[in-house]
This record gives sequence, structure tokens and C-alpha cells, in this order.
Amino acid sequence: MSKIKELGEFGLIHHLSSRLKFRASDSVLGIGDDCAVYPVKSGVYEVISTDAMVEGIHFKLSTTTPEALGRKALSVSLSDIAAMGGTPKRALVTLGISKKISVSFLDRMYAGFNEISNQFKVEIVGGDTVSSPKCFFINVSVIGEAKRVFTRRGARPGDHIFVTGTLGDSSLGLKLLNKKKKGDHKFLIERHLDPTPRVHETGILARSRINITSMIDISDGLVQDLYHICKASKIGARIYEDRLPQSLEFSRICSGNSISPLPLILNGGEDYELLFTLPADGVKNLNRQFLKAKAIVTQIGEIVLKPRKISLEMRDGTTKTLPQSEGFNHF
Amino acid sequence: MSKIKELGEFGLIHHLSSRLKFRASDSVLGIGDDCAVYPVKSGVYEVISTDAMVEGIHFKLSTTTPEALGRKALSVSLSDIAAMGGTPKRALVTLGISKKISVSFLDRMYAGFNEISNQFKVEIVGGDTVSSPKCFFINVSVIGEAKRVFTRRGARPGDHIFVTGTLGDSSLGLKLLNKKKKGDHKFLIERHLDPTPRVHETGILARSRINITSMIDISDGLVQDLYHICKASKIGARIYEDRLPQSLEFSRICSGNSISPLPLILNGGEDYELLFTLPADGVKNLNRQFLKAKAIVTQIGEIVLKPRKISLEMRDGTTKTLPQSEGFNHF
Repeated sequence: MSKIKELGEFGLIHHLSSRLKFRASDSVLGIGDDCAVYPVKSGVYEVISTDAMVEGIHFKLSTTTPEALGRKALSVSLSDIAAMGGTPKRALVTLGISKKISVSFLDRMYAGFNEISNQFKVEIVGGDTVSSPKCFFINVSVIGEAKRVFTRRGARPGDHIFVTGTLGDSSLGLKLLNKKKKGDHKFLIERHLDPTPRVHETGILARSRINITSMIDISDGLVQDLYHICKASKIGARIYEDRLPQSLEFSRICSGNSISPLPLILNGGEDYELLFTLPADGVKNLNRQFLKAKAIVTQIGEIVLKPRKISLEMRDGTTKTLPQSEGFNHF
Repeated sequence: MSKIKELGEFGLIHHLSSRLKFRASDSVLGIGDDCAVYPVKSGVYEVISTDAMVEGIHFKLSTTTPEALGRKALSVSLSDIAAMGGTPKRALVTLGISKKISVSFLDRMYAGFNEISNQFKVEIVGGDTVSSPKCFFINVSVIGEAKRVFTRRGARPGDHIFVTGTLGDSSLGLKLLNKKKKGDHKFLIERHLDPTPRVHETGILARSRINITSMIDISDGLVQDLYHICKASKIGARIYEDRLPQSLEFSRICSGNSISPLPLILNGGEDYELLFTLPADGVKNLNRQFLKAKAIVTQIGEIVLKPRKISLEMRDGTTKTLPQSEGFNHF
């Protein structure tokens, strides 16, 4: 019998879900993507996902605010909906309330929920509130709607790989937070504590005629999440060091403190940017749409035939094969 | 600022949900019933609910089995769907895995999920698996469909009050379990550890033409849950001691051990039976349908005009006003 730590999160999910035998006849997609998908009426699918955050594992009460925690707990679930091309509609919030949590803490956290709920027009329709004396946890389930569904499965050799926004900010922000270098790194720290789900960006793609062949959100890190696409699509990928998008703040702090940027960009995790693929003939349209919407998108590489292999072409012309990271193994 | 313990679960939910301002234009019912309700297509509503169970609060690993725990975690969520007249369709399972939980424990728990999933044709379509070193918890969100929705809001003076199954078994089972009187009380203990959601019974009602004016499932205890109906419907209720349905096993153990049955029946909780109301002209049809389906249903009283007051007519002819219990205040 393997141990949970040896299986890791993805191994455990695969192991356990193989024990579940009942499949609804109308399910389009079950366990194994960012959301489950099923049709609700002609041309409309529902996409649903759930995400838990546990104190001490996913956040520390000493380094976040209740408002930011509420915003993030909802935002990371919305990111899963965005990763499928969906528009989030409704959420259910479960709170496991430990002894140190007060009503005023919850009031402030709900102010955070309320902000994201208003911003993205997601109604919090219910939930559960239970006592959990030893650990504070938050679970958010979100239901969204999609007319086109973007899965991890359809990337093809020759497709171009794109990413929204910039990479590595969140993990550098976490690093600074843990070192208590808080003062002048607001942007990076907020990128960690208060990420923006790419709901508007996925909306641009969903409304366009661009043939998005695969998509995922980057929660475990670029390489790990690109591996998820490679595995599901049975292909490989080549990416380029000099194309990986960095924020000015990220570059400045890395170079000023002799921090190597690449590990943070490749494996940092919690970027909550969208990673997606499309055939070459859609690139022009894509860039035009994002320019119009003043949203950042960067082509970082191509899909290749060789299955499950990701290579990185370095600035110096050499090529590295990138090992599949385990993502962030909390177990 | 009140403390969480003072607000209690319902007070806290009311307090926090009042901070959430965004409402979807098509929501039929948000926070405050067993499920949230919204339309998905002409004549079809979706009903969704979420329920968490925390080790040490909702279950003890020493008194249940992993299989029963899996069955119960899913069943109690299905009970919420049943309480709205819905048919459960899909579920999301979040696990917060503590250090003492092994893969073989989870395998057995998933065997329990699988049983209920097969029995009620509910597909487990996804979830989240996180590390939670200090406490083991399970959160289940369920989505169902309903053509007719039964809420807590429509009970009217003169309506008859009905309950499925028998009451008090679960709380007596828990009592015996905690006293380690396990051996010969299988029925009662199973009623606690392994309750049956009344999905089939709600199906009988939903398919019938019976005008169900209100419904709830009994999770907090008969009196507390009847109060929820009274509050939402702005009416009161009268119930009769001699009509409250007891199992043979329950009566036998109570009388053989000088246990007073009434507190367990009225306030025991976790019965997961359906409590509902209908006008007098539907009673005959109701009894015929339940007889045909070999399902137990009992008329226990009537709805009265006086708002929020529940009275109990005792066997000796006297009448008591029943105080609103706080339900089970875990905080």
C-alpha cells in the first residue's frame, strides 16, 4: 500500500477516482480537468469546481488580511471556471471555524467575498458553517456556464502556446512575505495574496472565433500545468526562456537580490494565469483582441509531437528537458 | 460584537449572508433554505447544497467505519436535495486529509461513496484533495434537478404536517455508541452512522399531484426544523405526542432502559427524515402513494395561525409550548 505522500495529490486523485463507478449518461467531462462539464440546455454547458484552503497550508493568518483571504478563496475557484472558458455564476461557501476565528474576522472576510462576488457577478447562494476547533478552513464550490468549453485535451503539434499576464510574481511575493520584506513589494505580495482570476480574458477567447485547442490555469506552476496539457493531449511542448513574461517588478527584485528568476517562473505556482494553445492561423486575431482589451498575452512556445516531453530553449541557444515537477506536494 | 457561540449557526449564517450584496437576476432561492434554486431550462430547476463533516465534531474515527463515513458524508448532502423535491445528479467531494489518514482508509471511504453514488445514481464529478494536518474533514457539494421545488415557505393554517420514517433513532443510536453499547443495537446505531436520504420518498411526492406546501429534512431535530418552516411560512404548528412515529427498536430500548423518548424524538437531530405540509384534500392520495411504495409516512399535527409557536398536545390531554431549540450548537 503506497503512502499518500508517495502518491502525491494527482496520484491520490487518480487512485481514488478510479474507485468511483457511476457515470451520468450526459456527463461531458468528469474528474481530471479544471472543472467537470455537463450540458444543461441546447448549446450551454455547466462547469463546476471546488477548492479548499486550509490555514497553515494554503495561508497564514499572520501574513494575510481577512479581506484578501475572502477575495482569494473565491478568486481561485473562479480561476478554475475561467480555465474551461466559462463564466462563473454561483458559489457555495463552506467555513470550518476554529477557536481563534472571531465574528469580526468573518465580517472582514465576507467583505472580501462580497467584493469578488460583485466584481465578477457571482452570487454566493449558500454554504455550510461548521465548527472545526483545530483548523480553520474554507471550501468554495463554483458553478459557471460555457457555450464553448476549453479542456486540456485538444492541443496538436504545431499549435502555439500562450500565457496571459506575467509569471513568477506570486511565488516571489510569497518568498518576500515569508522573509517579512513587506514594505516596498506591494505589487508582488498582492499577486500572491490577492490574485485576479482571468475571467475577462477567457471571455475574450470564448466570444472570439479563435480555435482554442487546450487550456488550463496555472496553479501548480507553468511546467507542471503544461505537463497536464501534454498528458491529456498526448503531445509535448517546447518553450523559450526569452519569451517567458516577467513583470518589471519581478525582474527588478530578482536582479537586485541575486534571485534566479527561472525556477520561480517555471515552477513557482499560484500565478492563476491562463495557459492555452491554438493553431498558427488564430494568432493574429488573438493578439488583436487582447490588444483591444488591454490585456497581456504572450506566445511562449509550440506544441511538438514527442509525447509528454517539455523542452526549454535557453537564451544561450542550449536546450534543456524540463522534469515534471510534482507541483506543490503538501502531503 | 457578538461571539460566534452566542450567534449560533443560524444566527451566524444570517449575520454573514446579509453582507453579500450581489444577486443573480434568475435566482429563485438563495441562502436560507436546504438548497439554493435557479432555473436551467423551461420547467427545470437546479438545486444545490454543500455540507461539511469535521472529525471530532460530526464523527469519531473510533466509532464509525470508513465505508459508513463515506456513505454518510454523501447521504446527508443528498438529504438536502431531497428536502427540496429534487433528484440528485452530481457531487463534488473535498477531502482535508490529516496525518492519521491512510490510503487504505480513503479506499474504504471511497467504497462508501461509490455505494451511495450507485444507489442514487449520483456521479461524483470532481473535488479537491488537500493536506489538513490537524483535522480531517470532508465537504460534499451536490447538484440536483427538480421540476417542482418544495421550499420552507408555503405552509398555511389548516395544512397537515407529515413526517417520513421514524424519529429519534439516530440520537438514541449515538447515545448507545458513546456508551459503547454496540453489540445488539445494530438498527439504531446504523440509523446514526448510516442514514438513508429520503430521495425515493421525495420522488413519490414530486411525481404526484399532491400540493406540498412546505418541506425540510430533519437534521437539527423535529422541533428546530419545524421552527424553520414556521419562521419561513410565518405560521405556527400543533403536534401530538401520541402520533410521533417511533421504531419498535427505539421504543423497546427506551422503555427497557428508562430513557425518556420524547427529548430524543423532538430534539435528537440527524434523523434525515422529511418533514412536510399539505392541505387536507391531499392526505388520501399521499397515504395511497406511500402505501403503494411501502414507505412510511405519518401525520403528526397541523399548521396553525399563531406565528412561530409550536405546541405539543400530550397523551394526558395537556398542552406544552415547545421552546425553539438552538439545534445542535457546535460552537
